[in-house]
Amino acid sequence: MAVHEAERRAMARALELAAHGPRGINPQVGAVILSPAGEIIAEGWHHGAGTPHAEVDALSKLHDGDARGATAVVTLEPCNHTGRTGPCAVALIEAGISRVIYALDDPGAMSGGGAQRLRGAGVEVEAGEQADGARALIADWLTALRLGRPHITVKWAQSLDGRAAADDGTSQWITGPAARADVHRRRAEADAILVGTGTVLADDPALTARDGDMLYEHQPIPVVIGSRATPADAAVRRHPHEALFYDTDDLHSVVADLHERGIQNAFIEGGPTLASAFITAGLADRVLAYVAPVLLGGGRLALTDIGVPTIAAARRLTIEEWVPLGADMLAIARFEDDESDDDESDDNEGVR
Amino acid sequence: MAVHEAERRAMARALELAAHGPRGINPQVGAVILSPAGEIIAEGWHHGAGTPHAEVDALSKLHDGDARGATAVVTLEPCNHTGRTGPCAVALIEAGISRVIYALDDPGAMSGGGAQRLRGAGVEVEAGEQADGARALIADWLTALRLGRPHITVKWAQSLDGRAAADDGTSQWITGPAARADVHRRRAEADAILVGTGTVLADDPALTARDGDMLYEHQPIPVVIGSRATPADAAVRRHPHEALFYDTDDLHSVVADLHERGIQNAFIEGGPTLASAFITAGLADRVLAYVAPVLLGGGRLALTDIGVPTIAAARRLTIEEWVPLGADMLAIARFEDDESDDDESDDNEGVR
Ligand SMILES: NC(=O)c1ccc[n+]([C@@H]2O[C@H](COP(=O)([O-])OP(=O)(O)OC[C@H]3O[C@@H](n4cnc5c(N)ncnc54)[C@H](OP(=O)(O)O)[C@@H]3O)[C@@H](O)[C@H]2O)c1
Ligand SMILES: NC(=O)c1ccc[n+]([C@@H]2O[C@H](COP(=O)([O-])OP(=O)(O)OC[C@H]3O[C@@H](n4cnc5c(N)ncnc54)[C@H](OP(=O)(O)O)[C@@H]3O)[C@@H](O)[C@H]2O)c1
Repeated sequence: MAVHEAERRAMARALELAAHGPRGINPQVGAVILSPAGEIIAEGWHHGAGTPHAEVDALSKLHDGDARGATAVVTLEPCNHTGRTGPCAVALIEAGISRVIYALDDPGAMSGGGAQRLRGAGVEVEAGEQADGARALIADWLTALRLGRPHITVKWAQSLDGRAAADDGTSQWITGPAARADVHRRRAEADAILVGTGTVLADDPALTARDGDMLYEHQPIPVVIGSRATPADAAVRRHPHEALFYDTDDLHSVVADLHERGIQNAFIEGGPTLASAFITAGLADRVLAYVAPVLLGGGRLALTDIGVPTIAAARRLTIEEWVPLGADMLAIARFEDDESDDDESDDNEGVR
Repeated sequence: MAVHEAERRAMARALELAAHGPRGINPQVGAVILSPAGEIIAEGWHHGAGTPHAEVDALSKLHDGDARGATAVVTLEPCNHTGRTGPCAVALIEAGISRVIYALDDPGAMSGGGAQRLRGAGVEVEAGEQADGARALIADWLTALRLGRPHITVKWAQSLDGRAAADDGTSQWITGPAARADVHRRRAEADAILVGTGTVLADDPALTARDGDMLYEHQPIPVVIGSRATPADAAVRRHPHEALFYDTDDLHSVVADLHERGIQNAFIEGGPTLASAFITAGLADRVLAYVAPVLLGGGRLALTDIGVPTIAAARRLTIEEWVPLGADMLAIARFEDDESDDDESDDNEGVR
């Protein structure tokens, strides 16, 4: 059996629909129902945790019986899991769907097996259509699923000799405008941006993603970690998103809570104490170090202690890219002892 | 008047001859004497301080009267200075030379004026022939003349976060083989290599320039600075050149003495204390920072304090090149507050 041209077009449309859904604890999924003649008769997508899955959302647009003999085109394998909504595989069978095309196998251990259940009920099933597109769409969600927590990037700016500020604490600016603009662009791709109370009290940062005076459309959720109080008039309290405050130094608990809130990737933006604590805790997947051609010397280090007693225990990084930004150089690297970026396999099974 | 083809060829030859001479407190200079028919009748070069200048060396190969009506082709303007040997301009006039071609004006305030003296005696003079080649040959000598001291490169290897070693002092190896090979190649271009007693006592470095097990032909002179004694069996004492020991912390006096010894460029190879002291003293022209994709944290900093109290006083660098070396990155930079690399003018006058 092959996938027909109308089904291919329907999958491309389903991927568009999927992107309407929110990033969160659930993956973004889209679905299209095709009549036996290959016409689109319904569309749907997943609107977020607690709402119907994409297939069910699409079926809900039809009257009873309209889906009989129809084909469902879905970006993710229909689930086999009785959650708030019941398994989608069953909903498709009960609606009389006779053929299902999907892109990615369901990577969830609990929800998988939908394809088998459909086939058992006599439904034709084709897997893997436009799997790369589907995987790219939910790459961050897949990474967070594999890690069991958000993907974490630790970002800092430093002088060539590894300082975050001069001895009196002044640090504006170490890096140049191109590097600062790059930070804002990347912030606009993050779900959350985390700082310690030390940075809030010292710098009163806005923690928005800005292009000049303009706010990017997507803003990361600001997160402040530490026991000291954030002043009532702090800039972070005027952020488009309400800030999260964690009065703790247990970073694992913070990260677990962010994961439950559907944060798929987080940016640690300092200061040195918090960045070093994340690295020490093994809660760092990627480094973005903006290195300025400046020497500062002195005691204000960009990283403090990260629990490396001897050279054999050095935290080795794999550079993904050195990016020149004006006079500055950005090192993008991942931790060699970290598995988080290893799922480069191209086959559909790779995501399981 | 133009420079003839035979004279051009003679200048190329004079440049070759110049390179036979040693680097030192005097510039390398070569000379060729051409008969009126354009045949080479004598060659000479400067063999180092206290020996005849190149023109005089060439004239000494001829019998009295042989140079009458001949042309002298010299890589540097004949001097007008009564030193150990008397002014070369006078020697040429007395030998009966009727035409002089030279490449570079004499940049020495005391020795200049030779061309004028020659013209005054009725000798034809052409300046500037192959000036670029002559300037390139003695570039380091010209730089040291301008600075009034050797050109100083401070070199170190560091983790991305600016550490020279892990907390227990282990540091082999932070950088990879490509970076270490690059260091040796550059050592082989240095006249001297300087370390503090701390490095000698901690690492017992050989301070040779090696390609694998082989020594490069040119070896820098090893120099140890500090009051602590270097052990009798230290590796530096087995260096092809006898090491210089300076029992002082006055870096200006060290540098002045090296200059007098004809050292044109010096490499500061650590450790952190000595490197920082050179930078603080304003005795650093260039930085070579080999940055490894490793995080170490802790207290073993590649630079300690360099006298920067506040960000406005940061020692800003101008990156000349970022050089990827295996997984490492080499930053080659000069100090922005330093004038040492500004003589980029192309005209012959520029070197004065
Ligand atoms: N160069 C850069 O990229 C950059 C970026 C940001 C900031 N900075 C500079 O960094 C300075 C502030 O840095 P900082 O290091 O003092 O402050 P910080 O890292 O922002 O905050 C440190 C605080 O984080 C809290 N914290 C929560 N969990 C922790 C854990 N597991 N371990 C340790 N601390 C934990 C503690 O707060 P409590 O004590 O309240 O419990 C701690 O005091 C400012 O001068 C700022 O300008 C530089
Ligand atoms: N990563 C690298 O590129 C690199 C390179 C070399 C060394 N290292 C490491 O660096 C460590 C040694 O570094 P270090 O800083 O202790 O030693 P250092 O810089 O090699 O030597 C310091 C000594 O230099 C002398 N000195 C002379 N003039 C001075 C001045 N103006 N100011 C300060 N000191 C002056 C003093 O000697 P006295 O006290 O004897 O008078 C001082 O104690 C070793 O662990 C070595 O492995 C790393």
